Amino acid sequence: MSSRSPDAKAPDPARRNDRSRRAILDASLTLVAEVGYNKLTIEAIAARAGVGKQTIYRWWPSKAAVLLDASLALADDAKTEGGWTGFPDTGDLAADLKLVLRATVDQFNDEKYEAPMRALTAAGATDPDLSARFTEQLLKPQLALYEERLRAAREAGGLAPDVDLPLTVEMLVGPLTYRWLMGTAPLTHAFADELVDRVLGGVSKVTEG
Amino acid sequence: MSSRSPDAKAPDPARRNDRSRRAILDASLTLVAEVGYNKLTIEAIAARAGVGKQTIYRWWPSKAAVLLDASLALADDAKTEGGWTGFPDTGDLAADLKLVLRATVDQFNDEKYEAPMRALTAAGATDPDLSARFTEQLLKPQLALYEERLRAAREAGGLAPDVDLPLTVEMLVGPLTYRWLMGTAPLTHAFADELVDRVLGGVSKVTEG
Repeated sequence: MSSRSPDAKAPDPARRNDRSRRAILDASLTLVAEVGYNKLTIEAIAARAGVGKQTIYRWWPSKAAVLLDASLALADDAKTEGGWTGFPDTGDLAADLKLVLRATVDQFNDEKYEAPMRALTAAGATDPDLSARFTEQLLKPQLALYEERLRAAREAGGLAPDVDLPLTVEMLVGPLTYRWLMGTAPLTHAFADELVDRVLGGVSKVTEG
Repeated sequence: MSSRSPDAKAPDPARRNDRSRRAILDASLTLVAEVGYNKLTIEAIAARAGVGKQTIYRWWPSKAAVLLDASLALADDAKTEGGWTGFPDTGDLAADLKLVLRATVDQFNDEKYEAPMRALTAAGATDPDLSARFTEQLLKPQLALYEERLRAAREAGGLAPDVDLPLTVEMLVGPLTYRWLMGTAPLTHAFADELVDRVLGGVSKVTEG
């Protein structure tokens, strides 16, 4: 922490760095939504953020790396702004999962979140290092929240005791991500609800006892 | 069909085109596995195929478009070589689905199929036109085979009568594709088997009647 007074005329390097960093991340998100990932350049991000492009290259090796950090910041903001206090646990597992999956559907349908996610998915698919960072830093912390909620349900007796929790999480987020990425059909709340019900209950005809 | 005798000395333009086309598709698959999608160029494909690069540009607008046609040809070859006679229907839905999903796991773990799929997923994620062609021409015909098998099971009384078939297909292929693309955990036959069992039976604890 700097001990410099806020009234000091000389610029505070730490604060200026924070401001530049934030401006760069914001510019990358705005631009990827405007022009798409393929036409996004470090030069354009620098110009929009009002910094030199060397400032960006000092901190990030590629436009994909900028977007990953921007997405991490966006995820933090979404939590703060949405008053996020943890994965819901009302005791009704189906209701809690539907709430979270509906919110995920809304994010996938919102250009602000969708454009950088699409860009990172594209870049990660052919860049193993970026993909590993994306999975470790952005995805896994989110998947862990689902897993924690499912573990609580399992302990409360609502899930089969031998159920594989990571598999169950991927049964929820996998089909949703697949439909988003492949464009096989529209992503709707009804889809999220039906998915939750079928993951919990299965698709087989239950033989009446 | 040409009526020219196979012994004729003059080249048969249709046959030469077929040979060139096939050489280009094969070269694109070999090269994408060797150098990765980002370093793949039309020039390198042309050199490897022994054609001029104008020949490629006459038929395809981009390297992604070449790879899409190469993947379609690869899928046809796999059916022919594997003696594919349709989605299995032994009457045991779980066994049939496991057989097909295990084969899909094997393909995702085989560089020959994996490299072009990864390249097309990356390119499609930021190119809506390519993505639409990829989904319509490559994915949907495959998904339709699953759906047909599930419809037969539903008619035979093995699936809940109100089950959404496209959703059910995505519950099977979605988590598998997700784990492949995101690298969250290894793709194994055990994963495929457990996925099929849980999609059919659900993850909830079944109350003993």
